[in-house]
Amino acid sequence: MTAAVGIDLGGTKMAAGVVDASGTLVSKVSVPRPRSSEEMAVAPLRLAREVLTDEVKTVGLGVAGLVRWPVGELVWGPNIVGEGIRFRELLEDGLGLPAAVDNDANVAALAEVRIGAAQGFDNVVMLTLGTGIGGGLVIGGEVFRGASFAGEIGHVIVDVGGPFCTCGQRGCWETFASGRRLDQMARDLVAVEPDGPTARKAGMASANGIHLTSAALEGDTSAARMIGEMGTWLGLGIANLVAILDPDVFVIGGGVSRAGNILLEPARQAVEATLEGSKYRSRTRVVGSALGEDSALVGAGLLALEELRG
Amino acid sequence: MTAAVGIDLGGTKMAAGVVDASGTLVSKVSVPRPRSSEEMAVAPLRLAREVLTDEVKTVGLGVAGLVRWPVGELVWGPNIVGEGIRFRELLEDGLGLPAAVDNDANVAALAEVRIGAAQGFDNVVMLTLGTGIGGGLVIGGEVFRGASFAGEIGHVIVDVGGPFCTCGQRGCWETFASGRRLDQMARDLVAVEPDGPTARKAGMASANGIHLTSAALEGDTSAARMIGEMGTWLGLGIANLVAILDPDVFVIGGGVSRAGNILLEPARQAVEATLEGSKYRSRTRVVGSALGEDSALVGAGLLALEELRG
Repeated sequence: MTAAVGIDLGGTKMAAGVVDASGTLVSKVSVPRPRSSEEMAVAPLRLAREVLTDEVKTVGLGVAGLVRWPVGELVWGPNIVGEGIRFRELLEDGLGLPAAVDNDANVAALAEVRIGAAQGFDNVVMLTLGTGIGGGLVIGGEVFRGASFAGEIGHVIVDVGGPFCTCGQRGCWETFASGRRLDQMARDLVAVEPDGPTARKAGMASANGIHLTSAALEGDTSAARMIGEMGTWLGLGIANLVAILDPDVFVIGGGVSRAGNILLEPARQAVEATLEGSKYRSRTRVVGSALGEDSALVGAGLLALEELRG
Repeated sequence: MTAAVGIDLGGTKMAAGVVDASGTLVSKVSVPRPRSSEEMAVAPLRLAREVLTDEVKTVGLGVAGLVRWPVGELVWGPNIVGEGIRFRELLEDGLGLPAAVDNDANVAALAEVRIGAAQGFDNVVMLTLGTGIGGGLVIGGEVFRGASFAGEIGHVIVDVGGPFCTCGQRGCWETFASGRRLDQMARDLVAVEPDGPTARKAGMASANGIHLTSAALEGDTSAARMIGEMGTWLGLGIANLVAILDPDVFVIGGGVSRAGNILLEPARQAVEATLEGSKYRSRTRVVGSALGEDSALVGAGLLALEELRG
């Protein structure tokens, strides 16, 4: 049976695994993401070799940045290091296999449409709430890339003159709703509640979004309120995307989405509250990812297999 | 030769004309847009009858609002009166001809792609700067409507908590870049320069965007500065759309676009200045409409003809 290696190179970590034709993840390894440009250029190939099996006939990579399709060059990314890295060429030369390289949220969207939360829908927006907000668009059942880099939705400006973003602009959506922002919220919460649940979970370490989310899921109202505020910002940006694209469904993935409905329900309410003419429209579907943290990894494998079939 | 009646029902005026198969506008009448819901329901049919000829085999209507496709119902619009008007049915029953009814900017986009400024491009965003900002998306060469109402891009929130919009939200893009805003700018300019060129053009009437634009085109630097500021806001919203869709070209139409490069050049500069990773991307194409104020009228006719051919 033909399988692919899928690789997910995100803003925080890198994972690789073998994905079979049905999209099942057969194996998986995970490491911190490379911290230098030199490491970036070699790390995906090295990790792919670790999981390679005889069944693997192709390799797919999703990267958190601007990726030129179909040549598979990482042009640049606001939340990663490295520029102008020709990943497709590096992987094909290094492994002697065909490779497909795309934006990480693009491949995550593909996975959710093919075997996840968006099955049966034609027009889908995937949001991956990781370090920033990744975006993947599926239009008419296929990944939509526009001229090159469609789906960079974390950098829609929602607050002119607002907070600085890692991309160099101000007021980008992801400055209000992302893992980086959630980490900041966790530190803020610990500053005002130094003996609260989030602080206790962090212990001696600097508090982050994982601690805050755990506290909220266990019932801490302060932590839940902060995640709810992030949900409201999430909903505002989703309303913007409904106004533009009116897709069938939004799928929310990435680490921040582990908060589940503590995040998603305020988001749904904010969509209704901030969308032009919302009372004249159907309610917007906003659902959690079915593939969780593996969506990009599985999607990278599925994309490679689809490209192999041609 | 088969022809269509095209009708453009905008936020300020209504026009109808006969459009032949090549997209040539053979005749045209123009009237102020209806001011009551009752008028709205009958006015397009009445105007269509005025221009009807033997060659006309179908009728197309573009309306400035949320239009449900393909049933052709105006659901609601922030800049017009009337709700739940089944225009397609009204036109078909009244004329005994097939009809196609869509959002006005959608059909304007179609016209620019088929015979205007966006010929040869697959992925196009049309902006009609009329009373508000209308938006029409063409993806893969066809009008993209999403679940129903894609292209409501004037209501992307770019300034949380910003100025109130006619849609009931705050900080929508069109509160910064639209005919309504340009009218306000004209009044502001007359207040500080009561003897200036814009004031002289207005005479005894309240100054509006047409006076301001004329003054700017004749070299008045104050008026040109105001249009330039609007261009900067235009560019900011275009940058948002590039981040999301990365289309091949933006076509700018509507009355405000008569300012030409006084508006478009600052817009182009603002796109480069506010777009995530702009130095890693190709320059965004932002061009003026080729069909001018007739784009929606011609597009409505072309859409009806395309639907007739099936």
